This record gives sequence, C-alpha cells and structure tokens, in this order.
Amino acid sequence: MTAQTEKAIARILVIGAGFGGLTAATKLAQQGNVQVTVIDRHSYQLFAPLLYQVATGGLPEDDIAYPVRSAIPGVDFIRGDVVKVSMEANNVRLEDGRVLDFDQLVFAVGSGGTTFGIPGVQENALQMKDLYQARAIRNRLLQTYEDVETGLKPKESLRVVVAGGGPTGVEIAGAVAELQKSMHREFGKVAQHAAVTLVEAGPRLLPSFAEKSSAHAKSELEELGVHVMVDSAVDRMYPGDVHLKSGEVLPAGTIIWAAGVAAPAEWNVLGETDRSNRLMVSDTLRLQPNVWVLGDMAHVVGAGDSPLPMVASVAMQQGRYVAASIEKILKGEEPKPFSYKDKGQMATIGRRRAVVEMPNGIKLHGTIAWFAWLGLHVFYLAGGRNRISVMADWFWNYIFWGVGPKRPVID
Amino acid sequence: MTAQTEKAIARILVIGAGFGGLTAATKLAQQGNVQVTVIDRHSYQLFAPLLYQVATGGLPEDDIAYPVRSAIPGVDFIRGDVVKVSMEANNVRLEDGRVLDFDQLVFAVGSGGTTFGIPGVQENALQMKDLYQARAIRNRLLQTYEDVETGLKPKESLRVVVAGGGPTGVEIAGAVAELQKSMHREFGKVAQHAAVTLVEAGPRLLPSFAEKSSAHAKSELEELGVHVMVDSAVDRMYPGDVHLKSGEVLPAGTIIWAAGVAAPAEWNVLGETDRSNRLMVSDTLRLQPNVWVLGDMAHVVGAGDSPLPMVASVAMQQGRYVAASIEKILKGEEPKPFSYKDKGQMATIGRRRAVVEMPNGIKLHGTIAWFAWLGLHVFYLAGGRNRISVMADWFWNYIFWGVGPKRPVID
Repeated sequence: MTAQTEKAIARILVIGAGFGGLTAATKLAQQGNVQVTVIDRHSYQLFAPLLYQVATGGLPEDDIAYPVRSAIPGVDFIRGDVVKVSMEANNVRLEDGRVLDFDQLVFAVGSGGTTFGIPGVQENALQMKDLYQARAIRNRLLQTYEDVETGLKPKESLRVVVAGGGPTGVEIAGAVAELQKSMHREFGKVAQHAAVTLVEAGPRLLPSFAEKSSAHAKSELEELGVHVMVDSAVDRMYPGDVHLKSGEVLPAGTIIWAAGVAAPAEWNVLGETDRSNRLMVSDTLRLQPNVWVLGDMAHVVGAGDSPLPMVASVAMQQGRYVAASIEKILKGEEPKPFSYKDKGQMATIGRRRAVVEMPNGIKLHGTIAWFAWLGLHVFYLAGGRNRISVMADWFWNYIFWGVGPKRPVID
Repeated sequence: MTAQTEKAIARILVIGAGFGGLTAATKLAQQGNVQVTVIDRHSYQLFAPLLYQVATGGLPEDDIAYPVRSAIPGVDFIRGDVVKVSMEANNVRLEDGRVLDFDQLVFAVGSGGTTFGIPGVQENALQMKDLYQARAIRNRLLQTYEDVETGLKPKESLRVVVAGGGPTGVEIAGAVAELQKSMHREFGKVAQHAAVTLVEAGPRLLPSFAEKSSAHAKSELEELGVHVMVDSAVDRMYPGDVHLKSGEVLPAGTIIWAAGVAAPAEWNVLGETDRSNRLMVSDTLRLQPNVWVLGDMAHVVGAGDSPLPMVASVAMQQGRYVAASIEKILKGEEPKPFSYKDKGQMATIGRRRAVVEMPNGIKLHGTIAWFAWLGLHVFYLAGGRNRISVMADWFWNYIFWGVGPKRPVID
C-alpha cells in the first residue's frame, strides 16, 4: 500500500452504539475510502424504548439487545470504555490503555439517569437505563410477591411508586399495573395489596404532548388502576417510602426513578454544556471541524428556541446527517446546517392504550394508536430474529394477558 | 375447623422443583385432602436438557425457566434453601430459620456437577448445571472473539475443550462447533483459529448407548469439525490448558466440564449413599415410611443390577409413582414397589444430527432422530408461551443457521 492510498482512507471513529452512533456508522460504511470503527462498552445495541417491557416481564432481555457486529457487518467494532478524547491530538484513549487515532470523530454516547441531587434517590430508587437495571426491576417486582406471601416482607412492599410523568414513567407505570393484575392467579392471597402510584412534579403527564393527550394518558392509566399524582414533586426517599414536597409520604417496596435524563457529566471538559450536561454544538453538530456530537449528548436548538428532545428519532436523523456531512467534507465540500424534521411522538400506556401525535397535528388515542406504536417499534427493532421473537412474545401476551407472571426471577 | 378435619388433610412437602419434584407435586395436587407445598431455591423450573442451547446462544435463558407457580397453580410454593431435614421430628428447616412440618416428605433436589477431585477442574473449567453457569459459558465463548480480535487474548483462546463424552458433552461440543462456524461472518479475521476438542476418559462416546450409536455420534461430531479424543482421561487443568493422563496438553481459552454428575454430598447424613452421593432407598423409594427420595438423588436398582440413570424420564416416572403411592398410603393401602419402564434415550449432536434409541431396540440416526428429539423436547417444555418461543427461535436458527452470533454478551 502506498502512502497516497493510505492517506485517502479516512479513519472514522464512532463512540457509542446507540441509535445515533449506529445510524451514522451504517451510513458511513456504505461510503468508499473510509475505515469505520465503532466503540461501545457493550457489544450489543440496546433497543431502549422497550426496556420497560423487560423490566415488567413482557420480553426477555435478549430480544432488545442485538450484537453490534451483526447489525453492521463490515464495520470494525471494539468493546471498550472511552476515558479520554483528545481533540488536539485527534485520538481517544480506552480504559485498558489503548489509544485510537481518528480523522473524524462521531461522539454519541447517549445519556443516563440523573437524580437532580434529590436525597435518597440514588440509594433507594431503581433506574431503568440499561439491561442490568431492567433485570433488577423485574426481579424486585416478582420476588416481592414471593417475600410477601411467605411473610418475609410486609404487604406494603407490594406498592410501587414510579417517579416521573414523561413517556418512560407513563409506560412503566402502565406496565406495572398490568403485571400486578396478572399476578392474581399465582399469588391469590396477597395480590390485592399491590398498587402503583405515578408521581409527576409538573401539572400534567407527558408535558411535551398536547394537553388533550396528557388528559387521555391520565384517564387511561387510572382505568388501569394507576394512582396518578400531578403537582407532586419528590422531596426525598428512604428505604420503603417516598416523601413528597407536600409532606405526603408514599410507602413503596419498589421505587422506580424515571424522572431525569442527562448526558454523562465527564464530557463537559470538551466544551460548554447545558444543565443536562449536553454539549453545545454548532449548527453542523460539531465541536471542531472533525469532531461531531449527536443524539442525547448534543444540545441542538430546534424550532421555538428549545433544544431538541433526547429521543431516538432525533439521534437517528442526526446520525444520517453526520454521515452525509462527513462524506461531503471528504469530497472537499462544506456541510449544510442540520435541520430537524419533526416525526411526532408517541407513548404506550398499556394493552391497546397509547397516545400518538403526528407532525401534521393528527392525534391518535386508544387501539389505533397502540397498533401504530407496535408497528413502529417492530419496524425499528434491529435484527430479523429479534423482530420475530418480539412479535411472537407480544402476540402471546396479547392473547393470554393476565394469565400469570411473564418471566421467572433470575437473579 | 374441627380437629378431625384438620387431621384428615395431609401436609406434603416437596423439596425440589425439578422434573421429579414437579411431577409428584402436580399429581399430588390433583388428590383431595392434601396440602402440597413445593420448596426450591429458585422460583422457576429449569428445563435442564436445553441448558446447552442457552450456553451456546441458541435460546434466551427465559425460554427454559418457567415460574413454578405458573406450572402448578393451586400448589403452595416457597422460595428457599433447605438446610436440615429431620426424619424424627418430621420437619425441615430453611436457611432463613423457618421450620416446616410435614406428614409426607418428597425429597427431590437433583444433582450437581462433580469434579472427582481432579486438580484444577473447579478453578478452571466452566460447568453447566444451572442458568448462571450457562450464561457464563455463553459470555465467555462470545467475549473471547472480541478479545482475540482486539489483541487482548492470544488466538489459542478460541480453542474450546469439552471434557466428558456422555450426552451432555456430545451436545455441547456439537453446539460449540456450530456456533464457531457461525462466527466467520462477524469475526472474519480470527474465526479460523476457533476449534473444539471433546475428550472422553472411556473407549467410546455415549457409553450408555449401543456401540453403533457411539460410532455414529463420533463421526457426526467429526463432520462438524469437533476433534474427538476417546481413552483420554483428564489429569489436571490450568488456566489455559488441559493436561491429559497421556501427557498430552490441550490449550484452551474455554474449558467446559461435562464429565461428572453427583447428588449433593450434604444429604448423606440421612442414610447410606453410593459413590455418586445417591441415597440408597427401598424398592418403594423410601428412607422411612413417610420420606420419599426420587430422581437424581435416589439410588434405585434397575434391570441388570445397575442403578437407574440420572435422567429426566426416570425422575418423572418416579414422581408419578410417589404421588400414586402417597395416595394409597393415605387410603390405608400399601404401595407396590416402583418399576421402571425404559423409555429409551437420545442425544442431539447438531442441526439435523441426533441419535435415538427406542426401548424396542429401534435406533434412529440423522434427520429423523433430530426431529424426534425436537418434538419430544418441545412436548415436555413447561408452559405454552415457552413452547412457542422456543419453536420460533429454533425455526429461525434452522433457516438462518450460520448467519451470526445468536445472542449478545450480557455479562
């Protein structure tokens, strides 16, 4: 290989195998003269929108974790933890000491949960941002029935509090309510003590949705048996109860924290960040000409001056944009600014219950919204095998809803 | 409730939710005037015959773990560890201090792996008797590819040694060979260094089968690329290699121990045991008139004076027998001795490769044997949902064999 051809191959490093990173890597790999390497601390792509179903026993964890190498054949993949990014030296350092050089860097490590410093949240609440946490929630929910029935725990332990009224909180609260209903067959003696409360600090659920959708989500959740409390900020948590700012105390054997999402704070060394630790990037999603930031860790202003939401569709559009922009740069052209195309938003509440808001203003509720949600999630699920497996599981759940605990405790 | 009706309800304790214990519990629960309680350290029934598929990425773990309470509604279930059985006081003690009285005890805790005291096996080999061990094997097998490709481990790490030429060893060796074949697409640079060796101390594989079946299994495994070594006893193991008694040394990044099975040694306080720690029981499977022992932990002599094998079909027949015998005793009748009806035996080797020996002497090999194996395993798999899920996964595996790693590393 001559020096000339070596120079012509651009080394592109993609950090993060989430929706944004993998979309970028897939599109980049289709270009010539690039060598794309993806780095992630896990060797699978996590389909995070369905984490709540793993947490409530609806799906096995394998169904939402797809091996990165299978998702994007032809791309190099390194399993590792990036501990340092040097924008001057154009390299990144992994925890195990390896240093990888890049010509172009695509930085897309996503976000994690944040407790806003509320006392006791870290210690007493379960979060739901990765598979281990989802597994922990599932095991806690199911094992509590065992423990209450055999007298190891008081019956109040069967109460669940979900903090956070955004789409994640709404989805997990609805799924917990349905799980609790399905436990009556196996735990007839104690199942009636189970309950779920959803607390939201603001005046309504799903604050990013229209008021009508918020009201619909609330009434649907209440029909499922969820106790919905709005204007109810969490003050502190202890093992076994949640204290609200109003002074009210909610006993709970399981507390699920779905209230806060932020980018990892460690990367604020790279530039200015907002209060969610998101890096402020240029309108071409860059920190410098060859360092691109996208997805949940990028602060990008959308229509109406508010930053774009931290959701998969934003990350995927940005992934496609960054791949196309790098292609332009490698041809010596300048990229146009990123512009976001609103794809609407949706949240599922339970079986045949969902809210969908389309960008043209059409709002769907109920069964038709649920089927739209179902179809979209199956469509975006990576891997034909996972698609089939998820559809088989959902079909089964749909037919035999309420028949029993969906999954065993495997702790 | 009067003293008389209280006395009429027999408290039956079943320790162990395996094939034997759950068969007994299900049959007992159908009788009147009994209160059946099942105790197990896990709240699920493990379908152990398919553990090797979890270990090699063919199935998700949820598919072979079915909640006990769903399997036998109407039976009380306690998740706990039995630490003491008192045959004089007619009670058992759990690790957490609880004491449970019984009128009849059905003891069926099964078996675990045993290393025969061979040096280094415990420390360096992975066993495959429960879900955690199967998960560890899967993660080791898959992660080694990552580590070799990124240079963290030498290419010899991709060599796998399976010790033990019984059905379990044959099944796992064949499945590892097929997994290794399927990795060429994702790990093209290193996949050719993968290899699997099956070592058996005796002169042939599947010693309990006819010689013709043994020979067939050997040639089928060799066709799959497995290096089969008979008359090759393991002398000792180190991290990274297996030393045979012949002096030969086999390098291996993954060592799987499938050579020894024994009942837990702790229960030899209850009576005389054989060298596999199995309790010697009467021809009615009892240690005393109200204490029944069955499955892998019972030494029961079959035809030809050798003890019955430690397999699911023996345990299930014994479970049915014990349930019927307890019914007789509660009616004041005496049970007849247990007699075993040979159901034949089978082992799968790979896709469309299996050996089946039917009790009438008919032997099946190849595709037809594989379909027989498939059908029987789906039939006995607990839970309609798991059956559907396993069939969907197998169908997918069958169609897309070789397409890629079946499951992600979730460690």
